[in-house]
Amino acid sequence: MTESRTLAQIAELVGGTVRGDPSICVDNAAAIRSAASTSITWITNPKYATDVASSRAAAILAPADQGPTPMPAILCHALDAAVGMVINLFAPPSPSPPVGVHPSAVIATETDIAPDVAIGPFVVVDAGASIGARTIIHAGVHIGAAARIGNDCRLWNNVVVRERCTLGHRVTIHPNAVIGADGYGYFLAQGRHNKIAHGGIVTIGDDVEIGACTCIDRAKLGETIIGAGTKIDNLAQVGHNAHVGENCLLVAHAALAGSVTLEDYVVLAGHAGVAEHCVVGKGTVVSSFTAVAHDVAPGTVLSGSPARVHRKRLRAIAAGEKVPGLIRNVKRLDERVDRLESAADNT
Amino acid sequence: MTESRTLAQIAELVGGTVRGDPSICVDNAAAIRSAASTSITWITNPKYATDVASSRAAAILAPADQGPTPMPAILCHALDAAVGMVINLFAPPSPSPPVGVHPSAVIATETDIAPDVAIGPFVVVDAGASIGARTIIHAGVHIGAAARIGNDCRLWNNVVVRERCTLGHRVTIHPNAVIGADGYGYFLAQGRHNKIAHGGIVTIGDDVEIGACTCIDRAKLGETIIGAGTKIDNLAQVGHNAHVGENCLLVAHAALAGSVTLEDYVVLAGHAGVAEHCVVGKGTVVSSFTAVAHDVAPGTVLSGSPARVHRKRLRAIAAGEKVPGLIRNVKRLDERVDRLESAADNT
Amino acid sequence: MTESRTLAQIAELVGGTVRGDPSICVDNAAAIRSAASTSITWITNPKYATDVASSRAAAILAPADQGPTPMPAILCHALDAAVGMVINLFAPPSPSPPVGVHPSAVIATETDIAPDVAIGPFVVVDAGASIGARTIIHAGVHIGAAARIGNDCRLWNNVVVRERCTLGHRVTIHPNAVIGADGYGYFLAQGRHNKIAHGGIVTIGDDVEIGACTCIDRAKLGETIIGAGTKIDNLAQVGHNAHVGENCLLVAHAALAGSVTLEDYVVLAGHAGVAEHCVVGKGTVVSSFTAVAHDVAPGTVLSGSPARVHRKRLRAIAAGEKVPGLIRNVKRLDERVDRLESAADNT
Repeated sequence: MTESRTLAQIAELVGGTVRGDPSICVDNAAAIRSAASTSITWITNPKYATDVASSRAAAILAPADQGPTPMPAILCHALDAAVGMVINLFAPPSPSPPVGVHPSAVIATETDIAPDVAIGPFVVVDAGASIGARTIIHAGVHIGAAARIGNDCRLWNNVVVRERCTLGHRVTIHPNAVIGADGYGYFLAQGRHNKIAHGGIVTIGDDVEIGACTCIDRAKLGETIIGAGTKIDNLAQVGHNAHVGENCLLVAHAALAGSVTLEDYVVLAGHAGVAEHCVVGKGTVVSSFTAVAHDVAPGTVLSGSPARVHRKRLRAIAAGEKVPGLIRNVKRLDERVDRLESAADNT
Repeated sequence: MTESRTLAQIAELVGGTVRGDPSICVDNAAAIRSAASTSITWITNPKYATDVASSRAAAILAPADQGPTPMPAILCHALDAAVGMVINLFAPPSPSPPVGVHPSAVIATETDIAPDVAIGPFVVVDAGASIGARTIIHAGVHIGAAARIGNDCRLWNNVVVRERCTLGHRVTIHPNAVIGADGYGYFLAQGRHNKIAHGGIVTIGDDVEIGACTCIDRAKLGETIIGAGTKIDNLAQVGHNAHVGENCLLVAHAALAGSVTLEDYVVLAGHAGVAEHCVVGKGTVVSSFTAVAHDVAPGTVLSGSPARVHRKRLRAIAAGEKVPGLIRNVKRLDERVDRLESAADNT
Repeated sequence: MTESRTLAQIAELVGGTVRGDPSICVDNAAAIRSAASTSITWITNPKYATDVASSRAAAILAPADQGPTPMPAILCHALDAAVGMVINLFAPPSPSPPVGVHPSAVIATETDIAPDVAIGPFVVVDAGASIGARTIIHAGVHIGAAARIGNDCRLWNNVVVRERCTLGHRVTIHPNAVIGADGYGYFLAQGRHNKIAHGGIVTIGDDVEIGACTCIDRAKLGETIIGAGTKIDNLAQVGHNAHVGENCLLVAHAALAGSVTLEDYVVLAGHAGVAEHCVVGKGTVVSSFTAVAHDVAPGTVLSGSPARVHRKRLRAIAAGEKVPGLIRNVKRLDERVDRLESAADNT
């Protein structure tokens, strides 16, 4: 079982203030409807506000200005962060293969693998690859020739990292993701599409996380870059030679075509896409199902296909709603002008 | 070769009525254009209606009110179901590894595997996992610690089921799908995205089918749920803590964000998406490329991005078509009013 | 290091004309901003035209009508093709397992594998499969029973080719792609979705390339066909019984529903989709995020959801932009007609 903590200890961890008995112990974190008598819960989504009264939780994380609650509270100025920290505090650890190399793994002789790396069954590490300290390589991962994996990484099952690609430290890659497959590039000659070789690599910064079945293509020449701290969801696509900045977020099914540049802190919601060679400015938010086909200034919020400034698009949609009424108005005007014209003719 | 059947036998199977000689034998099912002289075919898509006359098929499945056909017919009240049953009758069986454990598989000692399970090469089953009777585990599948797989399941090649996830009976998962990877959840602190642990699981009901390269993320806390009888296509995404009802259909590239609820019999067409925390009512149909961002009442048909009631959207599109004409009308009105005003000034 | 070539040699390869000293040697191809003193570069995207002056490249590929350049140039009538050929000339070769079968591979006894095939670790080849001359099978690939792989193919890591599917010659498949999983087809009976067996196959023509994590479903009956020379990007979906013509391009996240026909040279941009049974005519271009729901004549350019002719859609969008002004105009007209009517009443 998980170790229990006092509210005083948790308040210190999250930088909050206990309202109520600080010596109360909790041993798990739970959403408000499923909280048990030893749980700590939270109130963040207003949808669930009415559930506070009926919750069995021993304590609750709440915003600094929270009114009375039926159970002791920890009041937090940064509530989302506090909830995240408390969930992490009580989460079970992810399982890992034991430190060392599983006997079934096929490791080339000329590799540089730190002694405390954990390598699971059926892993393949090709010649010239290196793996940093404390990194965990789950079953079925394939690491190509001369690829470099940093310290404290975790590559989940069946991940493929192709030759010469480079991962920083604390990189996590989820199952069946593919790093460094050839980009999609052809030239047309005599009516046929001819493959262009992709001799470049993928370079992934520190603290990057990449989702299951996500594909990051290698560069034609040079590098495809994923900046430090960027988090990519499942089933996303990053084309060859894309340069993704730091601390970006790419949600599931997002796609970057070749040679796109995302500056830092760009957010692509689900199913969003950016066309080739576009530059998307710092802090831009691309809404879901949005197709960006031009450069975008920093701090823009975009939506729609073709993409436009979200505020303007909402106005255009609202104007569009008025068209049926407008048609009726114009018809009436037409009749009124008809009558006026008849009257004028008769005078 | 497949065993042949009489039309009488097939009519009994599908609950239909033979029109013509019930002793005629067929030994395969084929689409109308490729049917051979021992085939049974069907007429469902009106596109192919004119092909009946030229078909070489020995017999045809047809709706109950079908007019004359050049070959004997089996008249069916539920034609789609009849066609499905006849295709299934003559389909070759899917190949499976032999019952038992392939010598290359890596099976932890503390597992609970039924004696008639078939486990292929390079399978990994971690400690505490259980696998029910008659289940088939193809090559390269990885089953995490304490995961539970029911009876009569089939996990195709390279499927990953992470720790503690649970599958019901008769669950089929296609190659390279990932069940139970971490959800996509972070909290922002000091300008960095910090990972929130996903200590929950995925729970999959009986008779669920999941497509190739589809990803079902584990819950942050508690469960991500796929209800019994739900069928999910390839490359779909189900976010952490989503609750998918029974008998839903999610077509390729459909995506559910975190904490979405789909009630029973919801259909998401290809590339459809639902934003986090939305509740989609029973029997709702979300058309392809539709972005749902609000709760949806049962039985709604939605389309577009942002999603709206499909019927209203069609009307809005039709109204939009009239804008160019409207612009011309208003210009003419303007000129007519100009003339009336001039005339009035002159009187 | 790569072997170096003279400009004369390169001009001959690409069918261009040297302007400057043809004996100058280059030993790598590089984009204009990263070119070194022994690089050959090119000027194709006008975005980078101003970079020519500052480039350190030894030579440049340029269009036939290019003005003066600071470095020697090779003038080309087909510049894109020339660039592709030069990149290919200097690209490092992709790594491959050595010719022969890795001892860990599990190869059924009744297979037909050419003697010069290279098979990596943890490959599975089931009974009755055949693999043609010089084909390269990377680690973790699974080839199903009676599947047929042609000559000079390359199947990257963890690719799954299911039973009886057929690949032509020179086919490349990127990691974690799935060829021949069951299609998505059910019939409803007693409120439940019942699986329809997919006993057909996938047939892939010569010179096809298929991206990472892409899924090509097997036919219900007969074949799903990918025509010769077609190139498919990552994370795309081809449904059961689709017939894709020759030399088509399907970009990332594109999707074909069941029984779609694409004629030759069709292009589907990213996130484009085609609904079931539609026929898309030769040379049609379906823009990104476009949902095709009807048959399409050859040579059409489509965009939007629902898809329409791109030119008409642009006009409709432009007309839509005028609605707010139109509303103001109609309001003014209304007031003017009010005044005219009052004046008429007063006379």
